[in-house]
Amino acid sequence: MDESLFTELVAVLDARRPSSAGPGEVYLVGAGPGEPRLLTIRALELLRRAEVVIYDRLVSQQVLDLVHPSAERIYAGKAENDHTLPQDQINHLLARLAKQGQRVLRLKGGDPFIFGRGGEEIQTLSAEGVNFEVIPGITAATGCAAYAGIPLTHRDYAQSCIFVTGHRKQDHALELNWSALAQRGQTVMFYMGLREVETISQQLQAHGLPSDWPAALVEQGTTSHQRAHISSLAELPTLVQQKEIKPPTLLMVGEVVKLHECLDWFDPSTSTVELLSTRKAKHE
Amino acid sequence: MDESLFTELVAVLDARRPSSAGPGEVYLVGAGPGEPRLLTIRALELLRRAEVVIYDRLVSQQVLDLVHPSAERIYAGKAENDHTLPQDQINHLLARLAKQGQRVLRLKGGDPFIFGRGGEEIQTLSAEGVNFEVIPGITAATGCAAYAGIPLTHRDYAQSCIFVTGHRKQDHALELNWSALAQRGQTVMFYMGLREVETISQQLQAHGLPSDWPAALVEQGTTSHQRAHISSLAELPTLVQQKEIKPPTLLMVGEVVKLHECLDWFDPSTSTVELLSTRKAKHE
Repeated sequence: MDESLFTELVAVLDARRPSSAGPGEVYLVGAGPGEPRLLTIRALELLRRAEVVIYDRLVSQQVLDLVHPSAERIYAGKAENDHTLPQDQINHLLARLAKQGQRVLRLKGGDPFIFGRGGEEIQTLSAEGVNFEVIPGITAATGCAAYAGIPLTHRDYAQSCIFVTGHRKQDHALELNWSALAQRGQTVMFYMGLREVETISQQLQAHGLPSDWPAALVEQGTTSHQRAHISSLAELPTLVQQKEIKPPTLLMVGEVVKLHECLDWFDPSTSTVELLSTRKAKHE
Repeated sequence: MDESLFTELVAVLDARRPSSAGPGEVYLVGAGPGEPRLLTIRALELLRRAEVVIYDRLVSQQVLDLVHPSAERIYAGKAENDHTLPQDQINHLLARLAKQGQRVLRLKGGDPFIFGRGGEEIQTLSAEGVNFEVIPGITAATGCAAYAGIPLTHRDYAQSCIFVTGHRKQDHALELNWSALAQRGQTVMFYMGLREVETISQQLQAHGLPSDWPAALVEQGTTSHQRAHISSLAELPTLVQQKEIKPPTLLMVGEVVKLHECLDWFDPSTSTVELLSTRKAKHE
C-alpha cells in the first residue's frame, strides 16, 4: 500500500471543499471498523468537507487523521458507563452547531444505525428543523468477519445472522432473548460483549448450545493490531483472561467460525497504511 | 455532486496500477447497495487494479462503470433460480484465472459474506492454494436503512437486528424459524423477500405479531430510483401489487419503521451522480 495514496485522494476532495458559509447541516457518518481504506468514498468526502467533527471513542486514530486540519474536533465519549457527554447534550449540540451555519460531521465507529444511537440524534435534528444526511459504514460484524475469514452466512452452516449488544444498563443483568440466540443454523454477533462473556457463555449453553459450539473473539478487527481468537463456547471466559483480550472486540458464535482455519487470509503485520498526519506526527 | 470527482479519484488510483504480471490473486469485494459513493476506498482501488472482473446481477451499473476499461468482464448471474453460471463453475473459474497469473476481482452486490456465497468461493481458492483478499461492503440492510431513515436498532424499539433471506430452494416452501422472527424488540431484514411476501406476512402474524405491525419495502435503495414504501404486516402483499414493486427490494419488519416519517432525509431525484463512462455512453 502506497503511503501517498490518501494524500492524493484528499487533495482531489479538498479542491471541492466549499468555502462560503451555507445554511448549516449535519452528516451522520459511519467511520467503519478501523482500517481507513474501509471508509466509503462519501465518508471521506464528508471528512474533508466538515467544519466541526464530533466523534466517538470507537473511531480509529487513522480515520480521525483524515479529518480536514481546519476542522474543530469534539470528543463525545463514550467508554462504557462513562459518557463524556450525555446523549441528550450530544443531540442538542449537533442542532446548535448546525443552526450557527456550520457543516457538522457526527462520526461514529462502524455504522451509525447499528447500536450507535444515531437515530436518537437525528430525531432531535428533525424536530429542530436541521438538515441532515446519513451515510452507512462498514459495521464491526461485517468488517471483522471479512478480515477474520469467517462468513456471516453459509449454506452449510448459517442461514441467518443476528446482531445483539452485550452492553447492559448499570446495575441490571444482561437481558437478552437467550432461547432465540441459542439456535443452530445461525450466526450471532455480540457487540460490546467482552465484559459479559461469562454470562453469554453460560446462558447460551443453558439454553441448548453444546459446550464445544464454535466461537471467535476478533480484537481490533481490520487493523494492524487485529487478533482473531478461536474458541468454544465453554472456553470463552478462560480465553479472555489468558490472552488478556481488550475492547474493542467482537464476539461471533456459530458454526461458520470453523471456516476461519482455511479462510484466514489477513496478515495484520503487513497491513499498516501510514497516513499523512500520522507520519507528520512521527517526524515532528 | 461534482461529475468529475470519480474521474479524478480514478486517475489517482490508475497511476498506481501495476503493469507487470504478478503471481495471480483474487479479490472478493462487496460492491455495496448501488450508489457508487458507498463503495469503500479499497473496493475502488481494486476495481481499478483488476484485470478480469466476475460480477453478479446485483452489482449496479454505476459501480460496473468504474471497472478499469482494460479489464475483461464476465457476468456470473444470477437471477433467482436461473443461475447463468452454476456456483461450482464460478468457484473453479476464479481459481483458474488466478493461476494464469491474473488479478481477478470477484464483485458481489452488498457484502460478500452476507447471503453472497463468498465463503464457498474462497473455500475453493484456499483448497487450490490461490491467494485472496476479502473486502466487506455496505450490505443492503445498512444501506437501505440509512437512505430510508430507518435505524436498525433504537433503545426504544429494537435491541437487536436479524438478517434472513426470503430466497427458497425450488419446489420447497420457505423454511424459517418463524417464532424467533416474530419477536418484538427486534428488527428483521429480509433479503430477496419480495417473491415470498405473502408467506412472510402470514407467518409472522400466525406466530404472534399484530396485523398492524410496521413494515417497509425499500426498492432500489440508495440509488436515484429508490422508493421507500411504508406498510403494515397485513397490507404488504397488496402494496407489492398496487405499487408494482420489483427487485431488488429489501423488506424491513419492526417498530423502527415508525421513525421513517420524521427521519426520511433522502431525495432520490437529486442524488444522481453522472459517472464518466455513463456520460460517455450517453453521448455516443
